[in-house]
Amino acid sequence: MRYSHLVGKTKKEIQKDEVGISVQYLIRGGFIHKELAGVYALLPLGLRVANKIIEIIREEMVAIDGQELTMTAIQNPEPWKKSGRWEDSVVDIWFKTLLKNGSEVGLATTHEEPLTKLLSQQISSYKDLPLYVFQFQTKFRNEPRPRSGLLRAREFIMKDLYSFDLDKEEHEKYYERAKQAYIKIWERLGIGDQTYLTFASGGTFSKYSHEFQTLCENGEDTIYVDKKKKIAVNKEVFNDEVLKELGLKKEDLEEEKAIEVGNIFPLGTKYSDALGLTFTDEKGEKKPVIMGSYGIGIGRTMATIVELKHDDKGIIWPENISPYKVHLIGLNLDDEKVNKTVEDIYSKLLENKISILFDDRKEVTPGEKFADADLLGITYRAVVSLKTDGEIELKKRDEDKSEIISVVDFINILKK
Amino acid sequence: MRYSHLVGKTKKEIQKDEVGISVQYLIRGGFIHKELAGVYALLPLGLRVANKIIEIIREEMVAIDGQELTMTAIQNPEPWKKSGRWEDSVVDIWFKTLLKNGSEVGLATTHEEPLTKLLSQQISSYKDLPLYVFQFQTKFRNEPRPRSGLLRAREFIMKDLYSFDLDKEEHEKYYERAKQAYIKIWERLGIGDQTYLTFASGGTFSKYSHEFQTLCENGEDTIYVDKKKKIAVNKEVFNDEVLKELGLKKEDLEEEKAIEVGNIFPLGTKYSDALGLTFTDEKGEKKPVIMGSYGIGIGRTMATIVELKHDDKGIIWPENISPYKVHLIGLNLDDEKVNKTVEDIYSKLLENKISILFDDRKEVTPGEKFADADLLGITYRAVVSLKTDGEIELKKRDEDKSEIISVVDFINILKK
Repeated sequence: MRYSHLVGKTKKEIQKDEVGISVQYLIRGGFIHKELAGVYALLPLGLRVANKIIEIIREEMVAIDGQELTMTAIQNPEPWKKSGRWEDSVVDIWFKTLLKNGSEVGLATTHEEPLTKLLSQQISSYKDLPLYVFQFQTKFRNEPRPRSGLLRAREFIMKDLYSFDLDKEEHEKYYERAKQAYIKIWERLGIGDQTYLTFASGGTFSKYSHEFQTLCENGEDTIYVDKKKKIAVNKEVFNDEVLKELGLKKEDLEEEKAIEVGNIFPLGTKYSDALGLTFTDEKGEKKPVIMGSYGIGIGRTMATIVELKHDDKGIIWPENISPYKVHLIGLNLDDEKVNKTVEDIYSKLLENKISILFDDRKEVTPGEKFADADLLGITYRAVVSLKTDGEIELKKRDEDKSEIISVVDFINILKK
Repeated sequence: MRYSHLVGKTKKEIQKDEVGISVQYLIRGGFIHKELAGVYALLPLGLRVANKIIEIIREEMVAIDGQELTMTAIQNPEPWKKSGRWEDSVVDIWFKTLLKNGSEVGLATTHEEPLTKLLSQQISSYKDLPLYVFQFQTKFRNEPRPRSGLLRAREFIMKDLYSFDLDKEEHEKYYERAKQAYIKIWERLGIGDQTYLTFASGGTFSKYSHEFQTLCENGEDTIYVDKKKKIAVNKEVFNDEVLKELGLKKEDLEEEKAIEVGNIFPLGTKYSDALGLTFTDEKGEKKPVIMGSYGIGIGRTMATIVELKHDDKGIIWPENISPYKVHLIGLNLDDEKVNKTVEDIYSKLLENKISILFDDRKEVTPGEKFADADLLGITYRAVVSLKTDGEIELKKRDEDKSEIISVVDFINILKK
């Protein structure tokens, strides 16, 4: 892709009405565009990163037997009324709207109810279980105070997985698999070291739910972390009794700010009872299905990665979610020979199916190009100029040292 | 995927409140699930087909220099007020809703306004043009009479591309490229022969827009088709003057019902004037950008393919969008040897990365399995039973003849 024609240019101005480094860098880098507070378009660079995050999560969800589907945004009120979650006094973040015939519908905040209803048409016998389904779907949450860009948005893509099991034992086995899958995801996304399995309040059917909290000064949550044991407790359940139960000692815990990047939640029979999702077991007895839900916000994850992976010049993307592999910068492009060289290198890299953003601008100073490359945070920066003499000056975003390298060697490095 | 655990089972019942063969087969086959009239979830089989359609369209949009992004569903009213399309009296299919602070927002019916506004921050010089952007994004249209399942829905994924050009000449060149890309898409989707470039009304800035209309009895539109010249005229502009201008003769035209699967629309400067999207040309003069928009509804395309590609037993998917390549049916599974054989074949096909739906159900008759296979319409049906003696009885969905073939030969056929 030629930078001269990329939709989403860098901006110099600080975004005054936005708080936090991730939203600053993501807007200034041209990854996202603010439509309204809490409502952001994904520009080409941002969409590329989001899609890479999605693909990593998808692989791990398929690996734990998740079947992908896509539920709808427009919600029939009926199952929500049955579960008691339709009224704004119960769920205070609904967006609601009217059909032409005057009947009220909601915009999805989550999907327990419609999915439970859908599966009640499918599940009747123990032979139909277990079932695990997931989606990457747009959620709408009418946040009174959307905050910090993608960290708390009104509209965002969420990966939500739901588990449907025969009994508590099977549920707990799956819950553990999901937990491990989540840990893998944070590792693959480069935030594993800072992300803690955190005990949080569990609702009616389970003493605890689990959050995955990533340590970050700009986080909204307060957690108490045992860094040796690699677990944490959310402030909301932080008391002597809980600590005792979890075998944690107050003196081993540090208070930290953190971002909830994911959560896993045992739902028990709350929704299957409300919506009649039952099965007949081997003895012919009717039983409710045991459910769980497992969420990851894609935008929030992307923002959290930026909160952790940056310096004062810009973003430093982990290599596997870098929007492009290489940021190719052409300098001295008024020199015909240099111009031809860099164009040839660009073609050659494309032929080798290496993903490149090519800064081909002629009217921009080297300093500005370097600053833009630092802001965008693509893993490899490759400079071609009068000085490089047909070769490439290569530097990784997170290293200071550059080296001069031949095009052939460069391609070999990238193909590794 | 094992059919026994697939979410989305076949149904026998005719859907009484739905009109048209596509919605009947798609619901009965477990491809889609009705949440509300005009609002359908994509179940795993439906999502697989939709994703294959999306991938074909994406390739052709990238081939005509489209940059992919994702705009938002929630719409800031401001640019719509400037263009005059905010009021329900002008656009009568808006869904609107309220933020917590009481301000009204809309749900996207289309994206000319927000995109024009976004690009006005990016485009200033002739050097910034041309730009072509596209997305696969959920649209919301408050249809008073949603109809025939995916053919006219209230919520649906749309591919919309927008072109931004320097002048009329460049615009027309691109418009022609987009037209050719669309023709390629219909061909790749297997409906090229029945899909006609159709002249329709053009609005303020152009005499005509162009629809792509696919002949179908269940279609909502009436068109007049010259089958030799492969063009058509929509009833709305069908008059002597237009026929003369297009060089068409009344006697060569047939009246047909058709489904509008796509449209391409010259927008001129309507939105760039309203929203101040201008550039400075080489002489330093300020000029408005010339725009065009280019839409394809993904669900409607999927439904149209079913309307055309079916028989009285079910769907016949074109091979490149078949949800799986092979529908493997195990019969006589109570026989241990047969059961082992078919499980081995399933593993072997998976190892060879062949996509398979495996009907592993034990409690279902062969007749039901064959009926389900016909309904689902997967390209290859492979039967393993007592009779097949370690080999496979292979039949294509659109052929009557089957043949016995070794597993190795089968893999070779599929890998071609």
